[in-house]
Amino acid sequence: TVVVLHRGRRAVYHRHLEDMGLRQSSYVPSCTPSSEDRRAATLDMLFRSIELHERTYIDRLRKAISFRSVSLEKAYRKDLIQTMYWLKEQMGSVGITCEAVATGIQEMLNGESIDLPPVILAQLGASPNKKTLLVYGYVDVEPADKKDDWKTEPFKLAEKDGQLYGRGVADNKATVMLWISAIEMLQKHNIDIPLNIKFCFEGMAHCGSLGVEWVLRKRSELWLQDVDFVCITDGQWLGNRKPCLSYGARGVCQFRIEVTTEGRDLHSGVHGGAVYEPMADLCWILDHLTDVTGKITIPGIDKLISPPNEKEQELFESLDFDIEEYQKSIGASELTGTSKVQLLTRIWRCPSLSIHGMEGGHSDGSCKRVIPSKAFANLSVHIVPNMTPDRVNNLIVNYLNMFWPKRRSPNSIKIYPQHCVYPWITKYSLPHFEAANRAIRHVYGVDADFTRQSRPIPAALILQHLTGGSVIVMPLNSRDDAPEVVNEKLQLRTYINGIKTIIAYLFELTSV
Amino acid sequence: TVVVLHRGRRAVYHRHLEDMGLRQSSYVPSCTPSSEDRRAATLDMLFRSIELHERTYIDRLRKAISFRSVSLEKAYRKDLIQTMYWLKEQMGSVGITCEAVATGIQEMLNGESIDLPPVILAQLGASPNKKTLLVYGYVDVEPADKKDDWKTEPFKLAEKDGQLYGRGVADNKATVMLWISAIEMLQKHNIDIPLNIKFCFEGMAHCGSLGVEWVLRKRSELWLQDVDFVCITDGQWLGNRKPCLSYGARGVCQFRIEVTTEGRDLHSGVHGGAVYEPMADLCWILDHLTDVTGKITIPGIDKLISPPNEKEQELFESLDFDIEEYQKSIGASELTGTSKVQLLTRIWRCPSLSIHGMEGGHSDGSCKRVIPSKAFANLSVHIVPNMTPDRVNNLIVNYLNMFWPKRRSPNSIKIYPQHCVYPWITKYSLPHFEAANRAIRHVYGVDADFTRQSRPIPAALILQHLTGGSVIVMPLNSRDDAPEVVNEKLQLRTYINGIKTIIAYLFELTSV
Repeated sequence: TVVVLHRGRRAVYHRHLEDMGLRQSSYVPSCTPSSEDRRAATLDMLFRSIELHERTYIDRLRKAISFRSVSLEKAYRKDLIQTMYWLKEQMGSVGITCEAVATGIQEMLNGESIDLPPVILAQLGASPNKKTLLVYGYVDVEPADKKDDWKTEPFKLAEKDGQLYGRGVADNKATVMLWISAIEMLQKHNIDIPLNIKFCFEGMAHCGSLGVEWVLRKRSELWLQDVDFVCITDGQWLGNRKPCLSYGARGVCQFRIEVTTEGRDLHSGVHGGAVYEPMADLCWILDHLTDVTGKITIPGIDKLISPPNEKEQELFESLDFDIEEYQKSIGASELTGTSKVQLLTRIWRCPSLSIHGMEGGHSDGSCKRVIPSKAFANLSVHIVPNMTPDRVNNLIVNYLNMFWPKRRSPNSIKIYPQHCVYPWITKYSLPHFEAANRAIRHVYGVDADFTRQSRPIPAALILQHLTGGSVIVMPLNSRDDAPEVVNEKLQLRTYINGIKTIIAYLFELTSV
Repeated sequence: TVVVLHRGRRAVYHRHLEDMGLRQSSYVPSCTPSSEDRRAATLDMLFRSIELHERTYIDRLRKAISFRSVSLEKAYRKDLIQTMYWLKEQMGSVGITCEAVATGIQEMLNGESIDLPPVILAQLGASPNKKTLLVYGYVDVEPADKKDDWKTEPFKLAEKDGQLYGRGVADNKATVMLWISAIEMLQKHNIDIPLNIKFCFEGMAHCGSLGVEWVLRKRSELWLQDVDFVCITDGQWLGNRKPCLSYGARGVCQFRIEVTTEGRDLHSGVHGGAVYEPMADLCWILDHLTDVTGKITIPGIDKLISPPNEKEQELFESLDFDIEEYQKSIGASELTGTSKVQLLTRIWRCPSLSIHGMEGGHSDGSCKRVIPSKAFANLSVHIVPNMTPDRVNNLIVNYLNMFWPKRRSPNSIKIYPQHCVYPWITKYSLPHFEAANRAIRHVYGVDADFTRQSRPIPAALILQHLTGGSVIVMPLNSRDDAPEVVNEKLQLRTYINGIKTIIAYLFELTSV
C-alpha cells in the first residue's frame, strides 16, 4: 500500500479510507507549539466558526442559484449580466476591489449581435512582500428546464437529506461563493490574508469563455505578470469520499456533421426507394468513426496521443477509485474498461467521441414520414495531450475526404468544426500541489488524490500560459454531484468543507 | 410504340405526349349522333360551364384550406371537428343527405382521451335501377408551420402563376371539394345523375383513419352491401402532364427503435470513453438495415415480395415517365435506378426503409455535450404485396434479436411497431378502369397511364374488402404538387379538370 509519489516524498495511501472515516482532522497541539501547530490551531478555530455560519453560506448560494445565468441561450443574457453585477456587489461587500470589464459583442449564428456579460477582475491586497494568487471561476450555467426530469425547480435551491439541489450548485456557482465566504470569514476574525489575491470571475464559461481570453491577454502584462499561483476551483473528485487535486484535463473539439442532398424534403411514401437518403448516409459515416466502446477508429489518431507513462500508471493504480462503485453511481450495466487503470486511462489519457444528437431537416417528433433533405449530427471529441484542435480537425476532415467516397452516395457531406478547447497538463510534483495537499489534510485528515479531469477546463491552459504561474485545479464537487445534467446537486458537507479548504490553502501557500 | 395492355385491347401510347399538347378533347359530332356522341356533347356543354365557374371552385377551396384540420396534433382537434361539420353543411347544400357519425375516442400516448372527429357518411340517390358508387375522401391535413420554409401562409389559399398553394390543396381537400362541385354542376343543369352515390369523407386519414374502419365495418352489411364501385380520388400522377389511374399502392409499417442504457444522461466530458453510448449503437444498427441505395438488407425480406411480372414490366416500360425529368423535379443529383422500369420497380414493387429522425434523451439543438441515456429513431418501411405488417414486424424483430448481440454492447434495443397499412392491389384490366380511362380521354384527349402508387392509400384495401366492389384510385394531383411537405400546391388547371373528370367518370360508369 505504499507508493512513491513524487520528489522522493513518500505518501501512505490507505486503500480503505472509508474504514478510517473522513472526519475532520482533530488537532492535538504538541508541547512546544511550532508555527505549523499555531497555524493548525488558527484553522481549527476558523473551522469551528465556519460551522456556526452554515446558514449564511446556504443563503448566499440560494441567491446565486436564483439567477438564470444561462450563457448558451440569448433569452437569458439579461439575467446573466445581472448575475455578474450581483457578484461584483457581493465581492465588494467583503472589501474586494472589483472592476466589471466589458468583453465585447457576441455574434450569433443568425447574424444578430448581443452584449457579452462583463468579466469581473478583482483584487484583494497588493503587498509587494506577499505572493500573488489568481483565482478563476465562473457563474454561468447550462440550460435547465423543470420539464427535463428535474425533481425540483432548477433555479431554486432545494435542501434535502444533506444535499443541495439546483442548477449551478456543482457547476460552478458554489465554488465562487466559497471564495467570498472564505474572505469574509478571515476578515471577521481580523486575520491577515497572507497573499495578494486576484480574481477573474466570468460568465461565458459554457460558451468557450467568449471575450475573456481577449480581456486577459490585453491585461496580461500589467495585471497578470505578478501572479505566482493560479487556483481553479472546478472539476470533480474521482469518487464521492476523497478530495482530489488535478494536474490535467482533456480538451474538446466539437463538430457538426451534415449530409445533404441537392433536392428538397420528400415524402418517404412517394419517393422512398428512388433516392439516396441523407439520414442513412449520416448513420453510416458515424458508425465508421468509433468502435462499440467509443474508441475512435480514425487512422492516425493514436499517433497524436502522448505515450503511456509508467509512473502515471502507478499513480492511477494507487488512487481511491472503486470501479464497481463508479459503475453503480452512473447506472451503467457495463464499462469499457475492466480495471481501474484501464478505465482511468480511457477517460483521462484517451480521446473519446460522443454523438449528442441527430436531426433531419424538419423533423419535429411528429410522425411525418419525411425523407429529410438534410441530416446533421452534433458530436464532440474529447482530446488529450499531445492532441491539438487543429491536428484533430485536420485528421477528421482528411478522413472524411478519404472515406466518404467509399459510400458511393451522391449526397454531400460537410463537417463544421465548432467550439474547441486545448487539453491541459502540468506536473503534480510541484510544491504548489504539496501545499494544496496539506490544506486538504487539514480539512479531511487524508492526502488528496492527484488526478486528471476528463472534462475540459479551458482556463487552466490559458492562465498557465498568460501568467507563467503554477496552475492547480482544486475540485470541490464529488463525482455524484453530476454537473450539467438534470438534478445537479452538491453535498452540504462538501460545500462547507470547501470554505475550510480554501482558507487552509491560503495559509499553506505562504510556505511554498 | 404499341403495347398490348390488357384483355387483348390495344392502346396506343404516344411516347412524346408533350408534342401533342395535353389540350382538352375538342369534340366533333359525327353525322348520326350515337349515344356516345350525345354523351360527349353533354360533357362538352358541362365542361364549358365549369370553366365559367372557376372562381366559385377556388372560393370553395379557399374556405376548405382556411380550416386548420391537422389530425396529428391534439391542439387542432376542435378545428378538425369544425371542418367535418362545415363539410357536412357544404354537402347538404347540394342536396346530399349527410350523417356525421361519431367514431369514438382517441387515446393519446400520455393517457389522455380526446374526441375523434366524426366521419361523414352521405348518400345521393337510392334508385334500385342504378348502380352505386362509393366515394372516399378526407379533409384532415399534415401539420404545417410558416416557419418551416413555407413561402405563403399554409392555411390561406394563395394563387400564383396558375398554381394554388396551401396545406391540403393537394392532399386532399381539393379532391373532396371537386365532388361537391361536380354534383352542384350537374344539378344546376338538371342533369340526372346516372348512379347512386355514397360518400365516406373522414378526418383522421393522417392518423391511420382511427375509428373510420370501425364505423364502416359496423355499417358494412346495411350500407356497403349495394356498392358496385369505389372511387378514391387520392394519390399522384406519375408525371406532371398525364393523368393516371392506379391499381395498387404500397403499405407502410412505422417503427420506433430505441437504444437505452440502464443509467442516466451523462456529461460526455466527464464520462466519455468509459461507457457504451446509445447514439453510436443506434447508428450502428440503422446502418445494418439498408444499403446505400436504401435497399433493405434484412435477410428474408425478398421472399415476402411478390415476384416480378413480365406483363407489368412491359406496362412500366410503356408509361409516360421521364426519369430525367423526375430526377430534376425532386432535385436529386442521382437516383437509385437508371432505367424507367428499374426505378418504377423500386418505388412501386420494392419495399423501402426511411429514417425520419433520430434523437437523444434531452437533445434540444443546443450544444449541451450530453451522452444521452436513450437514443431513438423513427423510421418507416413501405411495403408491397405480398408483405403484410405482421410478417414485416416479425422479420425485423427477429433480425434485431439475432443481429444485436453481434454489437456486443451492454445497452438494450427495443423496437416499437407503430402505425401500419397493408399494401393494396387490384387488376387494371377491369371494366371499371376502362370506364375511368374513357373519362380521362374526354377531358385530356389521351389515355390515362395505369400506375401503382408508391405511398399508402389505406382506404383502398379496406373498402375493397368491405364492399366487394371494384376499387379504383383516381389521382387528381400531378407529381410536383408535393403533398405533405412544405409549399404544397395544386395546378389550377388540374383542379378545374378534376371536376370535369369526375362528371365524365359518372357518365362512363353507367356503361360498365
